[in-house]
Amino acid sequence: MKSISSDSYAVHFNENAFKALNKHLKGADYSKIFILVDENTHNLCLPQFMAEIEGDYVYEIIEIEAGEIHKNLETCTQVWEAMSELDADRKSLMINLGGGVITDMGGFIASCFKRGIHFINVPTTLLSMVDASVGGKTGIDLGAIKNQIGVINQPQMVLVVSQFLNTLEERQLQSGFAEMLKHGLIKEKKYWEELKLLSNFDTMDEFIYHSVQIKNEVVLQDPTEQNIRKILNFGHTLGHAIESYFLESSSHETLLHGEAIAVGMIMEAFLSKELTGLSEKELEDIKTTFLKRYKKVAFTEEDIQAILGLMKFDKKNSHGNINFVLLESIGNPVIDIKIPNDLYIKAFDYYKD
Amino acid sequence: MKSISSDSYAVHFNENAFKALNKHLKGADYSKIFILVDENTHNLCLPQFMAEIEGDYVYEIIEIEAGEIHKNLETCTQVWEAMSELDADRKSLMINLGGGVITDMGGFIASCFKRGIHFINVPTTLLSMVDASVGGKTGIDLGAIKNQIGVINQPQMVLVVSQFLNTLEERQLQSGFAEMLKHGLIKEKKYWEELKLLSNFDTMDEFIYHSVQIKNEVVLQDPTEQNIRKILNFGHTLGHAIESYFLESSSHETLLHGEAIAVGMIMEAFLSKELTGLSEKELEDIKTTFLKRYKKVAFTEEDIQAILGLMKFDKKNSHGNINFVLLESIGNPVIDIKIPNDLYIKAFDYYKD
Repeated sequence: MKSISSDSYAVHFNENAFKALNKHLKGADYSKIFILVDENTHNLCLPQFMAEIEGDYVYEIIEIEAGEIHKNLETCTQVWEAMSELDADRKSLMINLGGGVITDMGGFIASCFKRGIHFINVPTTLLSMVDASVGGKTGIDLGAIKNQIGVINQPQMVLVVSQFLNTLEERQLQSGFAEMLKHGLIKEKKYWEELKLLSNFDTMDEFIYHSVQIKNEVVLQDPTEQNIRKILNFGHTLGHAIESYFLESSSHETLLHGEAIAVGMIMEAFLSKELTGLSEKELEDIKTTFLKRYKKVAFTEEDIQAILGLMKFDKKNSHGNINFVLLESIGNPVIDIKIPNDLYIKAFDYYKD
Repeated sequence: MKSISSDSYAVHFNENAFKALNKHLKGADYSKIFILVDENTHNLCLPQFMAEIEGDYVYEIIEIEAGEIHKNLETCTQVWEAMSELDADRKSLMINLGGGVITDMGGFIASCFKRGIHFINVPTTLLSMVDASVGGKTGIDLGAIKNQIGVINQPQMVLVVSQFLNTLEERQLQSGFAEMLKHGLIKEKKYWEELKLLSNFDTMDEFIYHSVQIKNEVVLQDPTEQNIRKILNFGHTLGHAIESYFLESSSHETLLHGEAIAVGMIMEAFLSKELTGLSEKELEDIKTTFLKRYKKVAFTEEDIQAILGLMKFDKKNSHGNINFVLLESIGNPVIDIKIPNDLYIKAFDYYKD
């Protein structure tokens, strides 16, 4: 599989991934290699990963606790302190081996340590392969607000190795798949149709590749999210608020990212029908497709009010306005749409129906 | 006074500073302006500053506690939380009004908030005018390690308004003056000679301007500190360790940054005589000049060992080596010099003598 060139680096796939990594390590003169893992990737991915590295380097493994709840400044501080203790310097390399929490947070940790050291992302979940692998977004949560703190900074390379998917449960794969469905909705109806038909996750390589291509094409046009890059946020304005709310709420089970944005996409598709001309037929197609894959989430009145309250912290907002990405039709998004207040409740009603 | 153009922004002086600011604010469409101050600049500088702003904007003043001891992640978190509460968004502007702690930390806070918002630095101390105003270094301390966490990111503009110096005590002015003397040592013997003769701080404008010019010239050649920019670290390898140690130690009075690097410069001048050919005469000139202005610091054996231990965290290190900037002569620095271990004690002995 051909590597995909992004901004200043490339995404390498499967058989090429370790070749590219070994070549890079041989050519660089890193003083030490730090590998950031959580307990899952430590057990399930690290042995495989280490077996592929040729050559003799000095490693330190830093393990953090798994889960979005740990994607915060306290964890960063612990890692920075560990790195200082372990003599990390400006010529150290950080390899982030894990899902989106590890790649987002590890990228932030590396970008701020001594004003920036090199890092390489090795996403091990479907979500992080198709979503976090390109675009240079790094970040952590601040309280309930997702990715409130972060920088845009590019890794040295990204390695997408689909064998790591074998370590994942079905629910995790479905979560990542929601982002792929989004890629169809915002960019390519044909891809949406293909993905809809997929009944298992056995042979994903071509689809992962295509999703990375779509995302890469978008971020290269607009690296700092001034305009077109915003289309990647379809489903995320409501989706992020829902995810944040369930993460903090003690009375609800936590939703995975993909599960939350699946809800967000159904609701924002409804808003698209109301405001930007999405057809009834495509709206129903979207709702049916997501509800077939993702369990319906129950919202009380109280939940809805709290979620709408959280939405005002969305990074896409400015001047007190909440800006949405909506669809004119599947494959044709529009950005910077403002929503009349009464439509939010209707969107929840449509989802519940 | 002509503005000095740096990387992507300019440094504006005195009568031009507020003109430039007002023009920028008028042209931009900021949703809100956050002004970061400490209790000193809140009282002594903010009223003057606000009086110069024309036009009607929405402000929020965020006050933090003064002092290097608060230049840490806890303070950043408090400010980020306050900003979130006050509805800061991606189109908000942050103005950092204060000394190096405020401009370094405020720059970091702005650079990471929602992956980066605009910021403007208004240094109010001599040190921050001549040192922190160009170069784009932002940062905070991690435990005892100075500026361990940060990014390189440029402000929209920097305003150097020398009337703010009237709010400073003599000791603060002397601290900043140490960086100016450094500019002479690393770049221009003539400037060193001029500064040596200065007996008071009444008319500093031309000197501040020249120091900003020197620093700007250096950082423009090497923004990411791969080579020549390192010369700005003269006196700082030992100086930072000394400053960190005194900051953390409960049995010592805290040293100001300039006071610590004055000690560092004397010692590193000694190392220069030993290793890179600095003449005995210039070494004595350097020692005499600094000791005339800065009170001699007493070091016990225990202090020295602790300081040498801290030095290994210096950001300039790599591969376990501590890299020094030394002088061949006044005005002619050399970078990446390694020091035989026994010379450190001799450098302290020379300073004590």
